[in-house]
Amino acid sequence: MNRKQLFKAIKLKRSFLCVGLDSDINKIPKHLLNHEDPIFEFNRQIIDSTHRHTVAYKPNIAFYESMGASGWISLGKTVEHIRKVSPEVIIIADAKRGDIGNTSALYAKTFFETYDFDAVTIAPYMGLDTVSPFLGYDDKWSIILALTSNKSAADFQYIRDNNNTALYENVLRTAQNWGNLDQIMFVVGATKAEELSKIREIAPDNFLLVPGVGAQGGNLEEVAKYGMNDHCGMLVNSSRGIIYASSESDFAKVAEDKSKELQIEMEKYLKDAKLI
Amino acid sequence: MNRKQLFKAIKLKRSFLCVGLDSDINKIPKHLLNHEDPIFEFNRQIIDSTHRHTVAYKPNIAFYESMGASGWISLGKTVEHIRKVSPEVIIIADAKRGDIGNTSALYAKTFFETYDFDAVTIAPYMGLDTVSPFLGYDDKWSIILALTSNKSAADFQYIRDNNNTALYENVLRTAQNWGNLDQIMFVVGATKAEELSKIREIAPDNFLLVPGVGAQGGNLEEVAKYGMNDHCGMLVNSSRGIIYASSESDFAKVAEDKSKELQIEMEKYLKDAKLI
Repeated sequence: MNRKQLFKAIKLKRSFLCVGLDSDINKIPKHLLNHEDPIFEFNRQIIDSTHRHTVAYKPNIAFYESMGASGWISLGKTVEHIRKVSPEVIIIADAKRGDIGNTSALYAKTFFETYDFDAVTIAPYMGLDTVSPFLGYDDKWSIILALTSNKSAADFQYIRDNNNTALYENVLRTAQNWGNLDQIMFVVGATKAEELSKIREIAPDNFLLVPGVGAQGGNLEEVAKYGMNDHCGMLVNSSRGIIYASSESDFAKVAEDKSKELQIEMEKYLKDAKLI
Repeated sequence: MNRKQLFKAIKLKRSFLCVGLDSDINKIPKHLLNHEDPIFEFNRQIIDSTHRHTVAYKPNIAFYESMGASGWISLGKTVEHIRKVSPEVIIIADAKRGDIGNTSALYAKTFFETYDFDAVTIAPYMGLDTVSPFLGYDDKWSIILALTSNKSAADFQYIRDNNNTALYENVLRTAQNWGNLDQIMFVVGATKAEELSKIREIAPDNFLLVPGVGAQGGNLEEVAKYGMNDHCGMLVNSSRGIIYASSESDFAKVAEDKSKELQIEMEKYLKDAKLI
């Protein structure tokens, strides 16, 4: 999937919502535990009920990996199911992988060949070598960690070099040149107007993956106002706020309602920006 | 496993060798492909033939992950086999994971509960939050990427802050305070005397995992001279130079010979340093 196709999906769905599949055996509704593959059954129902309001799904790989081989089977079935019911969405492996050489090539193989993902989140610490093998695949994305919203992001991401440029700004500046606008996206945990404006100065055209706005509620308006570009240029993720909005047998219906609420809000911002 | 136990193993084996299990279905001897689980059979024979000269094994997770669920089954059997034949070695997941909060907790669960590893390599970009959940496990290690030896390490790791401190030095300075000497190790791809001396100024007591010395041959002497501390303080990894030294039916015997060569050289440096 390239940038044009992604923008087309956004206009079609009138949404830039990404649903995070942080699917945890200890949090899914208890009645699903009788199924042969409870995690897949949970995901299947969430996908069936939310895909009309969604342009992206983002399985969080740690949740599957922690279950061992069976988790990877659930993951594979989940990706296949998304492809089947909603071929226009982008499927993101939130894996935060980062290695070099043939090891990096095998991570790319994992997510682009063994599993049918469109994009993978990648940690930038080891530089371009981390991303190179991923760039060899057509219509696939590397989503590079730039600014994260956790407290200890300040440990390193805000360190300023002798030009007074923060590390996360250096990552944005350098990594946007590693590939084209159909290949490089950034994880940006920024929700403040000032930060987003600065990020858009540095990387005006790249798509941004913004985590966690839906779950915490609030500042989606700010994010849209300061983060959007002429291709929309953003995917805003919500995980728990949608998939765990109910822990009862109505979980899929409630997830649909929550995703639709966000879609309606996003539609407004897309109209405000004259993108639809 | 704590630092004292690791040092005890080093003195017992007269070695600080780590064997990297970068086990690739396309590179293992062809006659193994008839086995039900060729990757495990390869690892089993490598482990059986090298463990007397080795204090650490380091499966490279990308190689297993790229095979899907079956790769994780091979990985689990490999870890169990190492525990059985050589309970004194440290088993390192070379996973380079890095996330935060409950996601990070699930990566820790993957490698310390679902699989029985002693240590995991971790990317530091998101700061302390990445490592916190790993520290909640007794006798387990977080091995944090500090300086890597690839060409594009320079993209970010060598960026100097306004105190003229490189990012990798900041990682060493900050992350050594995240846990104690039984918890925090660093990946250091340094093989030059000058770099290693500087690293030892910053982190004199932490164990270092030094990748790739064996495979490229050469500078083990330099690494030992400038990197050792009073607990040895280093594990030096060789992967391809041992496990793929022969691609014929004698691969296990040749791997034993190669690991023994390195052990003999390491024994000399341990004696020079009066550690044995």
